Amino acid sequence: MIDDRSIEWPAEEFLRNNELVAQELVRYLETIRDRPVAVGAASSELVQPLNGDPPQDPEPFDAILRDTVAQILPNVAHWNHPRFHGFFSISGSYPSALAELFAAGLNLNAMLASSTPAALSLEALVLRWIADFVGYPREADGILVPGASLGTFYALAAARDAALPRVRDKGWATAGAGQARIYASSEAHSSVDKAAAALGLGRDNVVRLKADESYQLSPDALREAIEDDVRNSRLPLAVVATVGTTATGAVDPLEEIAEVCSAAGVWLHVDAAYGGLWRLLPEVRAITPSLAVADSLVVNPHKGLFVSLESSCLYCRNRGALETSFRAVPDYLSMSDDDSGWDPMNRSLQLGRTFGALKLWWVIRSYGLQRIAGQFRHALRTARWLERELDAHPSFRRPAASVFPLVTFQHVRDNRELVRRVNATGKAFVSHATLPDGHVTRVSIGNIRTTCGDAEELWSVLRAVAAALDATADAHEGLSPSVGDRGNRR
Amino acid sequence: MIDDRSIEWPAEEFLRNNELVAQELVRYLETIRDRPVAVGAASSELVQPLNGDPPQDPEPFDAILRDTVAQILPNVAHWNHPRFHGFFSISGSYPSALAELFAAGLNLNAMLASSTPAALSLEALVLRWIADFVGYPREADGILVPGASLGTFYALAAARDAALPRVRDKGWATAGAGQARIYASSEAHSSVDKAAAALGLGRDNVVRLKADESYQLSPDALREAIEDDVRNSRLPLAVVATVGTTATGAVDPLEEIAEVCSAAGVWLHVDAAYGGLWRLLPEVRAITPSLAVADSLVVNPHKGLFVSLESSCLYCRNRGALETSFRAVPDYLSMSDDDSGWDPMNRSLQLGRTFGALKLWWVIRSYGLQRIAGQFRHALRTARWLERELDAHPSFRRPAASVFPLVTFQHVRDNRELVRRVNATGKAFVSHATLPDGHVTRVSIGNIRTTCGDAEELWSVLRAVAAALDATADAHEGLSPSVGDRGNRR
Repeated sequence: MIDDRSIEWPAEEFLRNNELVAQELVRYLETIRDRPVAVGAASSELVQPLNGDPPQDPEPFDAILRDTVAQILPNVAHWNHPRFHGFFSISGSYPSALAELFAAGLNLNAMLASSTPAALSLEALVLRWIADFVGYPREADGILVPGASLGTFYALAAARDAALPRVRDKGWATAGAGQARIYASSEAHSSVDKAAAALGLGRDNVVRLKADESYQLSPDALREAIEDDVRNSRLPLAVVATVGTTATGAVDPLEEIAEVCSAAGVWLHVDAAYGGLWRLLPEVRAITPSLAVADSLVVNPHKGLFVSLESSCLYCRNRGALETSFRAVPDYLSMSDDDSGWDPMNRSLQLGRTFGALKLWWVIRSYGLQRIAGQFRHALRTARWLERELDAHPSFRRPAASVFPLVTFQHVRDNRELVRRVNATGKAFVSHATLPDGHVTRVSIGNIRTTCGDAEELWSVLRAVAAALDATADAHEGLSPSVGDRGNRR
Repeated sequence: MIDDRSIEWPAEEFLRNNELVAQELVRYLETIRDRPVAVGAASSELVQPLNGDPPQDPEPFDAILRDTVAQILPNVAHWNHPRFHGFFSISGSYPSALAELFAAGLNLNAMLASSTPAALSLEALVLRWIADFVGYPREADGILVPGASLGTFYALAAARDAALPRVRDKGWATAGAGQARIYASSEAHSSVDKAAAALGLGRDNVVRLKADESYQLSPDALREAIEDDVRNSRLPLAVVATVGTTATGAVDPLEEIAEVCSAAGVWLHVDAAYGGLWRLLPEVRAITPSLAVADSLVVNPHKGLFVSLESSCLYCRNRGALETSFRAVPDYLSMSDDDSGWDPMNRSLQLGRTFGALKLWWVIRSYGLQRIAGQFRHALRTARWLERELDAHPSFRRPAASVFPLVTFQHVRDNRELVRRVNATGKAFVSHATLPDGHVTRVSIGNIRTTCGDAEELWSVLRAVAAALDATADAHEGLSPSVGDRGNRR
């Protein structure tokens, strides 16, 4: 006879361990301000590599959890820290974490409408909600994807196959398709280059147009580049415009860009991974262009909407275009003659996929739109406050302004050293970018727990580091301390 | 002044809601056998579409959870049901679900070694563990990806860029690269076609070699196809061999295929998404070919290792090849001059990504290798038992055999109707495939909770449906009931 006992924990053991995990998570999040936000710069050298063989026998769960807390937590940047302002501040939340728990327990595979119709109906619902948030036609095709880099890749595949329908089946070589081009500003995301490489277009065929003084894509430069390519028998395939560029949060002038695209018959993909969701606020919507002109669009709930990684929405107005690129239904997945519903497996490269709609549903319903909007406003006001402080301080200048809660500035003497020293304090984490104006500091605000007090602490660290840098510089310049008072003004 | 209260739940509210979720999950899993395994075939029509606008105000969490249970659970196939035998039986587990909870609470972005060194050290560790399980060089480059379809796509991109190094930058058109070919058996997964389309090779350049009578790729047929392409000035790029095909669990003869590949200078990618992990058992390893001959390999923990979706391991022996295809580091992500550690963002299209190593670590440590192996053996023995029963029953035949716990068989009269009726009982869910021998039923065994009793119930349903089909057929054939006793034999 077969030993028929499952290795799964009994329910009581799960409930007990679940309580341990929940309590540990609460301890972590409630005391997160006591931790250095980020590990030191060359930290990967310092971390003891995790080693050893897998255990032959079960280990007690409390020991596993203890190891996780002891070995992992001290050696990572805390992306969920209220003073983590690097890259794009992301924010997990309690309802999102609970949805991950429940979804993992169900372990539904959300690939096929005939198998998990309610899960896909829910995915369609949250995709419509978010389309409404950002102002995109809710009739567009949509799908949740792991991130915007993959979303942009899928959108550009659809653009390629719409313009060059033979490539998908015949390949570039046999289809006789020529040199095709993608246009984006110098500030657009690196995922555009990665997508062009993967799709067989080639990175060199991403025409990187120098952004203007506001870090925006210039419609005139775009028109000229397209015309030049047409004259040289190259095929203008797609434009990638950005709403919220990575370096400065700039917003490309979509309306004018859409006119250029429309006149030239070029696909317009909009990367609103960061900027899109802030349009939930009418005051942001009033000063940002409509996204409805986009042929395809990516918006990342995991950047702003208090849902944990991974969660990105891909939309495509050209219905069926994603299916044209990604539909390849093998016999074993043709479940019935009835083709009602939508099958995510036909809209991207993924087949097996999680029930990713659940966390969006739980987060939006748990907080409600008004409170989410309130939290967004809090981030925006905090960013504008920090900007006023920076503007009033002689050691800083701001070469760029954003309508989003992304503050870009530089220390007038040594910004690189400012970033290094701020991060070394462990009290805040900021990242950097390099603009034509030089090295700049980026402060992204948007964590669900960030308070005014956190922003004040960041500002206090920035001032202290700036003061130290100014004092050193003044000393080097041979000025007497009494004259070199700039850093101590405040 | 800014209203400074975070919208986040207080800790006590999280702890309370966490308990609700955990209890609901236990209730679900403990009573899962009372539910119909799958919804009816055309169910997407029956499901009330989820509708309405997002709430303006917070909703009580217990109501949200109640809605989830009431609206979602009755209208999905229960992939985590012990009698869900469709596709490849997948299995979430308690430790995996807890790891998802904790990882979502931390919300680390595991993209960059300098930011989350310990998380990436842990990812490297579990990748080495799994490489050891399946017998692949642990020095190979590796990365966790959402699924094998994406993994195969990334591997084939690396193969393309190794053979045609100019395509990545110049594109097919300008690089002057000709027609490149990928070879796979007629039984290989549809993701190969999707990858070829996306990469610009074209689906028609996937040479689908008719599998032999054991549903395997024939090395001789492969050699001939490659030679034919070379004679016709086409470039043989890569072979995709399968360990555990989708329809029948067949294993391609890797050693002979590797010889052909090596002689022709062709990249060998092995799709061991399903079959790889069973090689943890010495008895399976003894009768399956070594995976070490693969230039690249995908293995899916989310198929066999009791971790929830999404979890797939991609390996590449050619170190640096994935980076050649996917490295595009923008300035803002160059965190230090020190390049120690590994950056997942350079090995795939994803930038932001979850801390996916945690659930593998927790699951393997919670159960230990011996118990995992025991559970694998249980699945294998159950499958072999079912096969013996089927072999002894005159209404069934088995046109294919697998070394894995995947049982392929057909009802001799009307297999299509058998599958439909079995699934309509709600007591078990099976899927189908179409072989040269016709329509077959597939029973994949591998859920962590599947017992001998579950297998007996499945067998009882299969017999009952077969008896009914046989009785109807006998009646139609005009035989008297006393003669048409085949269906009632057992």
